[in-house]
Amino acid sequence: MRIFGVDPGSRRTGYGCIETNGSRHRLLVCGALSAPADAPLAERLHTVHGGLARLLAAHKPDVVALEDLFYARNARSALVLGHVRGVAMLAAAEAGLPAAEYSPAEVKRAVVGYGRADKRQVQQMVALLLGMDAPPSPLDASDALAVAVCHAHSIGPTGDRDGVRKRPARSWRQYVPSEAAPPEAGAGRAGRRTVS
Amino acid sequence: MRIFGVDPGSRRTGYGCIETNGSRHRLLVCGALSAPADAPLAERLHTVHGGLARLLAAHKPDVVALEDLFYARNARSALVLGHVRGVAMLAAAEAGLPAAEYSPAEVKRAVVGYGRADKRQVQQMVALLLGMDAPPSPLDASDALAVAVCHAHSIGPTGDRDGVRKRPARSWRQYVPSEAAPPEAGAGRAGRRTVS
Repeated sequence: MRIFGVDPGSRRTGYGCIETNGSRHRLLVCGALSAPADAPLAERLHTVHGGLARLLAAHKPDVVALEDLFYARNARSALVLGHVRGVAMLAAAEAGLPAAEYSPAEVKRAVVGYGRADKRQVQQMVALLLGMDAPPSPLDASDALAVAVCHAHSIGPTGDRDGVRKRPARSWRQYVPSEAAPPEAGAGRAGRRTVS
Repeated sequence: MRIFGVDPGSRRTGYGCIETNGSRHRLLVCGALSAPADAPLAERLHTVHGGLARLLAAHKPDVVALEDLFYARNARSALVLGHVRGVAMLAAAEAGLPAAEYSPAEVKRAVVGYGRADKRQVQQMVALLLGMDAPPSPLDASDALAVAVCHAHSIGPTGDRDGVRKRPARSWRQYVPSEAAPPEAGAGRAGRRTVS
């Protein structure tokens, strides 16, 4: 299955898409979306939403994973992060995709094995787990990939090439939009390979 | 000119569209968008964004006005409000509309003449200013109309039927998206009347 991780940020929003069978993962794409630092908030939201919509359409993931951000330190930064996170969740809903959320500690435990790991440790483990020659950069992209890997570990080995789970997923909050168009099935996915 | 006010909320998002010449205003539509209280955040965002997009397309305003929400009391409520406000700003940007922001105190001063007025006083003044028989309901709709009226007072009398300003606007933050499709001009607007 394909998992699309997002790390919303007020300046840069990281993203990373992996293909996984639940235990082994392969990097498909990663990077960060950003508008000029002095751009108005509406322009930054427009950039993030449009960029994510295009990436979701291009890479056709099965699920979007992102950090549960109910941990922001102050109201002002929480509000700005909320705006960006809102348009990211909207992009997932519009693409007909469920959104899985994990706390920062859950992500770190899943990737590094230690809930208080720092960003550099996460970056190195992500590179190792995805067999990358160099650590993913910028850190926003690394964080997005870490959430995707966390979701992959959470659902466990899929065991077959269609990515169907053989054991039940750990509980995660999800929403499958009823109004949204279902993700394109068939043609666009025929060529997908799961890592095995 | 037409002003579309929005009052984003975690449970309900109020909206209200008025037509104004800067000193006299007419109500076009008002109401509130809401998803079931227990619906996941992604579903609520989808409902608010879709509803606003349809309303903006139907009523063809010239500008969207909303409260500057950098006043939320705690990080948790600021984050949820931020999500809703983010998709509201996105809907404006996608419709090619500038967004004008005012602090809650500016809105109250503009409508009631007193920056610490309560919601009921705002509701009654909005009804009076718009010549409504009954106060706008729910309060979310009343708050959205208050922001629209605040923007109308802020730009001042337009003086002509096309809604072109005769004196410069007071400074307000705005963003005119460059990528977005420009709002439909011509046909859809030919029948508009300004109140005079």
